[in-house]
Amino acid sequence: MSNTFGHVFRVTTFGESHGGGLGVIVDGCPAGHPFPHARIAAQLARRRPGQGRLTSPRQEADAPTLLSGVHSESGLTLGTPIAMIFANKDARSRHYDDLARLYRPSHADYTYEARYGLREAAGGGRASARETVARVAAGALAEDLLAALHGIEIVAWVDEVAGIRAAAVDEEAVSRDMVDEAEVRCPDSAAAAAMSAAIDAARQGGDTVGGVVRCVARRVPAGWGAPVFGKLSADLAGALMSLPATRAFEIGEGMAATRLRGSEHNDPFYAEGGRVRTRTNHSGGIQGGISNGETIRLAVAFKPVATIFKPQETVTREGESVTFQAKGRHDPCVLPRAVPMVEAMVALVLCDHMLRARIARIEGAP
Amino acid sequence: MSNTFGHVFRVTTFGESHGGGLGVIVDGCPAGHPFPHARIAAQLARRRPGQGRLTSPRQEADAPTLLSGVHSESGLTLGTPIAMIFANKDARSRHYDDLARLYRPSHADYTYEARYGLREAAGGGRASARETVARVAAGALAEDLLAALHGIEIVAWVDEVAGIRAAAVDEEAVSRDMVDEAEVRCPDSAAAAAMSAAIDAARQGGDTVGGVVRCVARRVPAGWGAPVFGKLSADLAGALMSLPATRAFEIGEGMAATRLRGSEHNDPFYAEGGRVRTRTNHSGGIQGGISNGETIRLAVAFKPVATIFKPQETVTREGESVTFQAKGRHDPCVLPRAVPMVEAMVALVLCDHMLRARIARIEGAP
Amino acid sequence: MSNTFGHVFRVTTFGESHGGGLGVIVDGCPAGHPFPHARIAAQLARRRPGQGRLTSPRQEADAPTLLSGVHSESGLTLGTPIAMIFANKDARSRHYDDLARLYRPSHADYTYEARYGLREAAGGGRASARETVARVAAGALAEDLLAALHGIEIVAWVDEVAGIRAAAVDEEAVSRDMVDEAEVRCPDSAAAAAMSAAIDAARQGGDTVGGVVRCVARRVPAGWGAPVFGKLSADLAGALMSLPATRAFEIGEGMAATRLRGSEHNDPFYAEGGRVRTRTNHSGGIQGGISNGETIRLAVAFKPVATIFKPQETVTREGESVTFQAKGRHDPCVLPRAVPMVEAMVALVLCDHMLRARIARIEGAP
Amino acid sequence: MSNTFGHVFRVTTFGESHGGGLGVIVDGCPAGHPFPHARIAAQLARRRPGQGRLTSPRQEADAPTLLSGVHSESGLTLGTPIAMIFANKDARSRHYDDLARLYRPSHADYTYEARYGLREAAGGGRASARETVARVAAGALAEDLLAALHGIEIVAWVDEVAGIRAAAVDEEAVSRDMVDEAEVRCPDSAAAAAMSAAIDAARQGGDTVGGVVRCVARRVPAGWGAPVFGKLSADLAGALMSLPATRAFEIGEGMAATRLRGSEHNDPFYAEGGRVRTRTNHSGGIQGGISNGETIRLAVAFKPVATIFKPQETVTREGESVTFQAKGRHDPCVLPRAVPMVEAMVALVLCDHMLRARIARIEGAP
Repeated sequence: MSNTFGHVFRVTTFGESHGGGLGVIVDGCPAGHPFPHARIAAQLARRRPGQGRLTSPRQEADAPTLLSGVHSESGLTLGTPIAMIFANKDARSRHYDDLARLYRPSHADYTYEARYGLREAAGGGRASARETVARVAAGALAEDLLAALHGIEIVAWVDEVAGIRAAAVDEEAVSRDMVDEAEVRCPDSAAAAAMSAAIDAARQGGDTVGGVVRCVARRVPAGWGAPVFGKLSADLAGALMSLPATRAFEIGEGMAATRLRGSEHNDPFYAEGGRVRTRTNHSGGIQGGISNGETIRLAVAFKPVATIFKPQETVTREGESVTFQAKGRHDPCVLPRAVPMVEAMVALVLCDHMLRARIARIEGAP
Repeated sequence: MSNTFGHVFRVTTFGESHGGGLGVIVDGCPAGHPFPHARIAAQLARRRPGQGRLTSPRQEADAPTLLSGVHSESGLTLGTPIAMIFANKDARSRHYDDLARLYRPSHADYTYEARYGLREAAGGGRASARETVARVAAGALAEDLLAALHGIEIVAWVDEVAGIRAAAVDEEAVSRDMVDEAEVRCPDSAAAAAMSAAIDAARQGGDTVGGVVRCVARRVPAGWGAPVFGKLSADLAGALMSLPATRAFEIGEGMAATRLRGSEHNDPFYAEGGRVRTRTNHSGGIQGGISNGETIRLAVAFKPVATIFKPQETVTREGESVTFQAKGRHDPCVLPRAVPMVEAMVALVLCDHMLRARIARIEGAP
Repeated sequence: MSNTFGHVFRVTTFGESHGGGLGVIVDGCPAGHPFPHARIAAQLARRRPGQGRLTSPRQEADAPTLLSGVHSESGLTLGTPIAMIFANKDARSRHYDDLARLYRPSHADYTYEARYGLREAAGGGRASARETVARVAAGALAEDLLAALHGIEIVAWVDEVAGIRAAAVDEEAVSRDMVDEAEVRCPDSAAAAAMSAAIDAARQGGDTVGGVVRCVARRVPAGWGAPVFGKLSADLAGALMSLPATRAFEIGEGMAATRLRGSEHNDPFYAEGGRVRTRTNHSGGIQGGISNGETIRLAVAFKPVATIFKPQETVTREGESVTFQAKGRHDPCVLPRAVPMVEAMVALVLCDHMLRARIARIEGAP
Repeated sequence: MSNTFGHVFRVTTFGESHGGGLGVIVDGCPAGHPFPHARIAAQLARRRPGQGRLTSPRQEADAPTLLSGVHSESGLTLGTPIAMIFANKDARSRHYDDLARLYRPSHADYTYEARYGLREAAGGGRASARETVARVAAGALAEDLLAALHGIEIVAWVDEVAGIRAAAVDEEAVSRDMVDEAEVRCPDSAAAAAMSAAIDAARQGGDTVGGVVRCVARRVPAGWGAPVFGKLSADLAGALMSLPATRAFEIGEGMAATRLRGSEHNDPFYAEGGRVRTRTNHSGGIQGGISNGETIRLAVAFKPVATIFKPQETVTREGESVTFQAKGRHDPCVLPRAVPMVEAMVALVLCDHMLRARIARIEGAP
């Protein structure tokens, strides 16, 4: 159950960082939708390592092999499981040989062993961020459905790195093109430059930095989400906190909401062209766990990357104290590549809820 | 699927705020555990409205009727579904009659109607915080299992209200008794007094305030949690963000982690008495989504209560602009009563993962 | 997971035969449907013990208490969980006191203890056929949705008792009224009389008999069901074999299909008024696990009731050999009361698939 | 949800008959088990087409590519998802070109189109029996766990073909070697010869035949299975009726149980060496849905293969009446190859319940 996400639009990922390959099965994708090869390729390109000096130089084409679920003639989805696999081409396992005997601090080495009694040391095994390639592919399919059926736009950006914050971004206007103008994926060019410098400085010091990705989903209709445990906000929180290195999730005003009075935080309703709107959007588009038709607004915090290039104290599998010094290829900051991952997880949640909303009431009732 | 939580320890809640009653079914509770009437009563008492001047004066005994799942002779759980129901005794539906025609700002009135085409207006229906009575009962059962089988302690407290923050709480020592010394459930007595004053001031102004609950779970063994979508941190995030009025979730250092360098945030490992420990606990007891044996540390942000006693702009179901003025019984601040709710959701997640950990590996292997 | 049925129209039952009560939660019922009190009462009446001389004289009103999920004003479903509970009124636990120490042959006494280490002896606990009251209530709700939205009719009847078989029943015409004409619920009056006599004879000899229920579902649209593990036939098999005392399930021709050649068993297609029809219906309305628009036809075999009134060899919990002689109230034949249970389980499967079919394809595509 | 089977040992299959390939993901396999390459290969070999004159001449190596979930050094399962894929090597899609425009009688062509609006015509797409290659691989893994941890043996055989029945098979002694002595996989050599002749005769007449597979599972401990919807018998029924071409399922005496009296069908208990046993095993090893420690006995009926080589009436997608004459490679009888499929589905059910039984009670309690 751990490797499957969603209730009716169900995504299962599999695979270790090194070895045969990774992949994803999407079960529950409605039939009759043109399979979006281009959108998937575009989002995978944004996630890919080796995009520039800010990201890990590991080179992988990351072009998925489509095994099933798409009509050979028309290119439409068949309604059956869609399988995409990614070969592990550039796997230099020898880098990881001596890692098998110790626990890298703040990695999943020790905890996987505590759970399973063994672990695949190469590349972090299943705990590797490489697993997100599968999610990004599935998420691009989901967002294509959302765009086609409801015109929904999901845009994420780097809002903060190492304490450097973007100036207020226009959440109704920001686009992926604007986000991609800077390599760091912050649409505020001044902040972007400062962030890049901070990342460079961290790398030169053998250190790493964290930050915050913000995301909006525009044109989500009112009525998506469900009561109690199926709240849209709860599902988004669970989805986004399943990404590697995440430390916090905020919906709407997030933490800042706690310092507002009710009279400041409440969003007054008004009618506009037969539609119920809110004057403000402190709620972030979700009230009582269900979308209200306003833009969904959220934020996700990522910790600094655990792989640093300074000596660290740790222990071996046998409990011996040792000093660990990392080698190899690693991002000093995960934020730029996290942008499409955040978009993917938001899309997966929304697509599942889009389908669930279609069976939440008798048509026309009451 | 929206009203069920958990994979193998499965909790289903049902019921509207007014009407026949609410309840909870726990499916998957192992057989042979003494049913913890006293612990359930204790946690329900902490959740109950009418505990003092800080909470809503609505009076409900909230003693559950146990319908099934417990051995009539021994009082042990049977392994079959445990059903607890709560009658709705003090339901003054006439308070809600005129609410049926308009949408209270930042409540779930509009969104439920958008989804379902109708809603139960009395008491907020299914969106009422009264639903949490069912979770608190189930959570107390879960934490009793955790305590009996692993000595686990879960303690939450009010850490911040209206911007007033508790001084650093000793997370290894704080107890429920210490938390309950102040009505506001903040173990820092000076901060508690200031918080109470702030809540009083808000109420007198017809306004409301929000805040932050922090929670620890001590003695969780290493190895609970699962890769990818089943990360302990992801499940906790989803669980806690399913509570009413939540706006943010943090694990470990949370948002603050984004401003640390990797060299500051990483938790060095060392060996202590044959056990792998970490020198610091910035990770909050979870690495790669799996517990590492250190104390689990998290925080949840609650917005100010939506029901304020000032005139507010809104619209009717027919789209007419009206001014809404709330009446009736409502907490000016949900934080003190949220403490046992947070503990309950943490217990539900941990209990589910406790059972899942038991089947994650071949015994003794490797 | 054991006590929940269905994927999107989800039914959870709970409760032991004796004790506080039993009940059912229906999660996923679409909003806006008039709650069918009368249909539920009618099907419960057909399931109730004490209907005549063929069934157990245990008297229970079996009127459910509706706790939640229905709009207090309109009587429409709210989209939230519907909870119905049944009090255990006529529970004579003293009958069961001495049963606690031995295992009744071919009952669940031993196996429940083997699994859980203990069992509720009174009335068979969770293994009692009384649990089916909850399913029949939920099934009546499901069939009301099926009838309202698609005009679907589900009719089951007793087709065989103790080897006495009904003459061929007109599967396109048989109605519940015709079925209910005889107390034994066989629409062939001659066979019905013989069945009644056989049941009487068995009772007088302190013995019991089994038989076969057949069921049709008419007007199920083509396209319900799913590939592979979600085949309509597979879900029906699992549903019906979850009823107590079931021993076999057949779809279409069932076992008899194995003795036909392909050229005899295949159902030729033809076109009729723009609709694709089959000339014969050996397939029982399902091909490749998906409905083809023809009448769904199935059969379920029930073993003779395990409680007989003759001395039987068994062992105690301590492993001592003893002779067991049953006392109390028990049906000599479960078949007449099984008819509404079969209809309920068929309705639950179809209702779940009705909703799933609504999200299986992009509307209008291709 | 349709393509996933199991609750904690979860198997997801994907893939069409022709196209990129098929595969299976096993999520929830405990860590630390030696991955059973040889057992998987052996069962795949028994399922493979082209084994002799009784089966389809389609040649496929059916050696799976293992992508993930197994420790590269030790060959032990990692606890993470195990992915096996099967390339589609011998796919002669041109055979299927003209099938795209008509509906083959008693195939899934029409029903898939009714559901999804389109279908992959080549090879039957997702409805092809080729999908079972994925289940057989996963099932072999499951049975290896069952064998290693409990010494469980699962043996199926062809018990009836075209009305020719095997003489009584010794269910406690029958082995796979005995079953495989005859190509038709019936351990009664006289019956096997007659069955082979019947299959040959059917093929020569361009026709097909059906039959019955029986299966036993020996040494399943008492206490597996669950109440109500999770009955072992219900899960087995659903599992086996999900195989292509199945028409009936029987547990224990099956249909024949309906003609026995309770006094004949009940299984008296006795004590043997501290263990509770039954004198007879009419119940087929399951009572109240839970195993009692005796051999589990079941049967599955398969209809005659739908592809016959005689002219048949059917309609095109446009509703035009046409005569259809099949070409290509097809088994005249699915029974011999169904044997490992039945074993696989039984293993999947038992493995899921093995794990579920481990968390059904507090250890040692009561």
